Amino acid sequence: MSTVNLQDLVLDRASAIPLSQQLTLQLSHWVVSGRLAPGIRLPASRVLAQDLKLSRNTINTAIDQLRAQGYLTSQAGSGVFVSTDLPQKDKPLLKASIQGLKEYPPLSDYGEQLQKNDFKERSGQLPFTPGVPDLSAFPYKIWQTLMRRHSDRAILGGYQGNQGYKPLRENLAHYLNSSRGLRCTPDQIIITQGAQQGLALCTQLLLNPGDHVLHEEPGYMGARKAFTAIGANIKPLIMGTDGLDVSQLPLKTSAKLLYTTPTHQYPMGGILPTSDRLQLLNWADKHRLWIIEDDYDSEFHFYTNPIAAMQGMAELSPVIYLGSFSKTLQPGLRLGYLVVPKPLVSAFVQAKSFICGESPLLSQAVVSDFIEEGHFIRHLRRMRLNYQKKWEHMQSLCEQHLQGTMTPIAQSAGMHLVLQSNNPQLDDVRLHQRFSQAGFGSSPLSYYYQGEVKKRGLVLGFSNTNEQEREQGIQTLAGLLSRSDL
Amino acid sequence: MSTVNLQDLVLDRASAIPLSQQLTLQLSHWVVSGRLAPGIRLPASRVLAQDLKLSRNTINTAIDQLRAQGYLTSQAGSGVFVSTDLPQKDKPLLKASIQGLKEYPPLSDYGEQLQKNDFKERSGQLPFTPGVPDLSAFPYKIWQTLMRRHSDRAILGGYQGNQGYKPLRENLAHYLNSSRGLRCTPDQIIITQGAQQGLALCTQLLLNPGDHVLHEEPGYMGARKAFTAIGANIKPLIMGTDGLDVSQLPLKTSAKLLYTTPTHQYPMGGILPTSDRLQLLNWADKHRLWIIEDDYDSEFHFYTNPIAAMQGMAELSPVIYLGSFSKTLQPGLRLGYLVVPKPLVSAFVQAKSFICGESPLLSQAVVSDFIEEGHFIRHLRRMRLNYQKKWEHMQSLCEQHLQGTMTPIAQSAGMHLVLQSNNPQLDDVRLHQRFSQAGFGSSPLSYYYQGEVKKRGLVLGFSNTNEQEREQGIQTLAGLLSRSDL
Repeated sequence: MSTVNLQDLVLDRASAIPLSQQLTLQLSHWVVSGRLAPGIRLPASRVLAQDLKLSRNTINTAIDQLRAQGYLTSQAGSGVFVSTDLPQKDKPLLKASIQGLKEYPPLSDYGEQLQKNDFKERSGQLPFTPGVPDLSAFPYKIWQTLMRRHSDRAILGGYQGNQGYKPLRENLAHYLNSSRGLRCTPDQIIITQGAQQGLALCTQLLLNPGDHVLHEEPGYMGARKAFTAIGANIKPLIMGTDGLDVSQLPLKTSAKLLYTTPTHQYPMGGILPTSDRLQLLNWADKHRLWIIEDDYDSEFHFYTNPIAAMQGMAELSPVIYLGSFSKTLQPGLRLGYLVVPKPLVSAFVQAKSFICGESPLLSQAVVSDFIEEGHFIRHLRRMRLNYQKKWEHMQSLCEQHLQGTMTPIAQSAGMHLVLQSNNPQLDDVRLHQRFSQAGFGSSPLSYYYQGEVKKRGLVLGFSNTNEQEREQGIQTLAGLLSRSDL
Repeated sequence: MSTVNLQDLVLDRASAIPLSQQLTLQLSHWVVSGRLAPGIRLPASRVLAQDLKLSRNTINTAIDQLRAQGYLTSQAGSGVFVSTDLPQKDKPLLKASIQGLKEYPPLSDYGEQLQKNDFKERSGQLPFTPGVPDLSAFPYKIWQTLMRRHSDRAILGGYQGNQGYKPLRENLAHYLNSSRGLRCTPDQIIITQGAQQGLALCTQLLLNPGDHVLHEEPGYMGARKAFTAIGANIKPLIMGTDGLDVSQLPLKTSAKLLYTTPTHQYPMGGILPTSDRLQLLNWADKHRLWIIEDDYDSEFHFYTNPIAAMQGMAELSPVIYLGSFSKTLQPGLRLGYLVVPKPLVSAFVQAKSFICGESPLLSQAVVSDFIEEGHFIRHLRRMRLNYQKKWEHMQSLCEQHLQGTMTPIAQSAGMHLVLQSNNPQLDDVRLHQRFSQAGFGSSPLSYYYQGEVKKRGLVLGFSNTNEQEREQGIQTLAGLLSRSDL
């Protein structure tokens, strides 16, 4: 029998994990991988202890474990041997390097489809990356106080239900009814782990694969992704200057669902007027369509109080209201909410328990107090002024530097500004890439189209930028635009 | 024109929301609902101010808003009127009370299915509710220190990527490799918002509706729910005393996926021996099946070091490793993780971004430090002893009080104990209900079966109980069992 060289066992002597356990695991891998051949004899524990600079105690503990687990056998007197009864493994399992998927079992159709995408995750965000609120203006002190208040409550460590923390649902219902004009009770609210999860729940419960969905064009990509994930068939809605053009709604439709952002069309801005909202509700009711009303940042209108949500315009409306704390508080919290008609609550709560489970309790408790004690309304008021100043600054910078190349769509702000290119042929994807190489985030306007791209340009999130970033950003953009190859 | 009675407007004068805004919203609802009929004339603002005890300023602001939103019109001199141009709403939208779903658009097949369930969400937990760790023994002080360290980091308020916080993936990889015998790099780890989300991602990416899945019987209900949600076809695996019986694996199978808990079968306990693990891996590889290895609480073996995870037994294995922090830390955190083969990472990260989005950053940062600084290993060691004491106490209580009625399945502990009824006809659902009426949680053993129920009894989670609860609980149970009608 050949001898064994255990010199290159890697042991982390600093680790909190017992050395005997580390030794057990590595030797078991060596046996399984064939590096220690079946039948081979191990050196005496005394020798091993010397070679590995470990106590004999550690060695013996490991050997006992490995014997118990069937990796080693011992023959009285003649020592300890690598087991010969372990089943030999088929080739692929022994292969050291992974060539790709072909050695693996197949994926679902959806998985195969994603597998084809050339996907590179963007981690972290740059100045102007859309969708990020002013994180430097977040009231951390108040937040920490509220966290301390709740952070040792054992009850928040356990399970409290998939629908969400009751006090939060109560405070949220009061806020939504009195501030956003909803008609809902706390038991119609489902707290989600972010708005995207809310969308996923809607698709699961409202759509079969192949169903038709009406979606704003240009429109929110996150919604389109959720619809695609369920295999829905997305049809674009024709848009007017105030959001979707209700006069263009089809007379006949087989669609099951319509997604809209009536109080601040994403990304172009525009507020759907009251009478259009009522027409839309009537139309949806007549054709038996669900409406997802995404109210993602209606709190940030600068010159008018936000118009009341559609959900509240009728006692019995086929509207599912989608909300998020990512814009009003922080994306990092990963909290959002759905307001659904009472008869749907049970199905939504069950679906949440099956596909995601509960939402984190501590942050729910903190947000609940944050709303109840008035911090939420005050924070929103402060941010509205904060973003308005930044937006006015953006406007003046655009006038200074982008005259003739790009037109800012004033009504798009909120938290981002849409810069529409005067050149309809502009390669806004390349512009976006160049801008990103220069250290600035953005989204190409063409990304917001599924079908024919009617407008090109960049979407810039300014809410999380400072003065210098805005100045440098717009000047950099002007520089890029002055080049002829875009 | 009839006069208007605005007396019963409800205004919350304590609220942080401006009274003018509250007034605007409610009047708009009254107009839409027809309570203020089209064409009717509003009292003069002076009168309104008196009647409602509001400043004329407030009244006028509200009226201006409502005019701007098209609810009201004004005719010079003759006053302010409810708009007559608003489209009349169809009946259903006016209906004041919701009768049920029939007025609403249809749901998806899955939605209709859930709608049929008589579902009542259990909120909060009772002593013995399975799956809850000892929340009173959680190291809150350390946790708070780590939270303070991170809680004002603006970077954690934003977006950092759907795969998860990098330092956490690094620390977790080190823990899993050195303590659980995995072979993974941080870029194979995906942090999820709880293990249930990890299961949902697997079903999305590995299963088409109608695909066959092999599942332990009795087995984990959460997995079965996730498989059902995607419309998979679940086939039971035959179990032996040490978990699934590999000698009973089918020679032919069309299944795409096998779900197993090899290191601590749920709920019966049992550790799948090394040679069986290798056979299972070979079998899965041969039949091109995915294996989901759910390692939910392997840290809590009392008398042996946990055997290494299957994922690490071969370089190239079709294993997706599912982990959770709900048992090792807290369910309330809602954090779990997946370890997937490198070629699948991109698809999993994309799917996560489409159906759930990122995981919360602050808690990821805290858990990361908690592991890196050795608190995690120490906490697990403490909990192992903590649960072992409780388990021994449970054993002796069962001997005292349940002789002849129920047999504790010693190897099931961990965090719960399976009490198998000596009477195979026991109505364990009714027993569970009675026990719950007495103030104690449990799960009927029959719940863990999808097909024919072979064993009946109760699953009791003892990890979050104190001595008194255990004594009262088992005595109460003995009392219930002494009654003849079960």
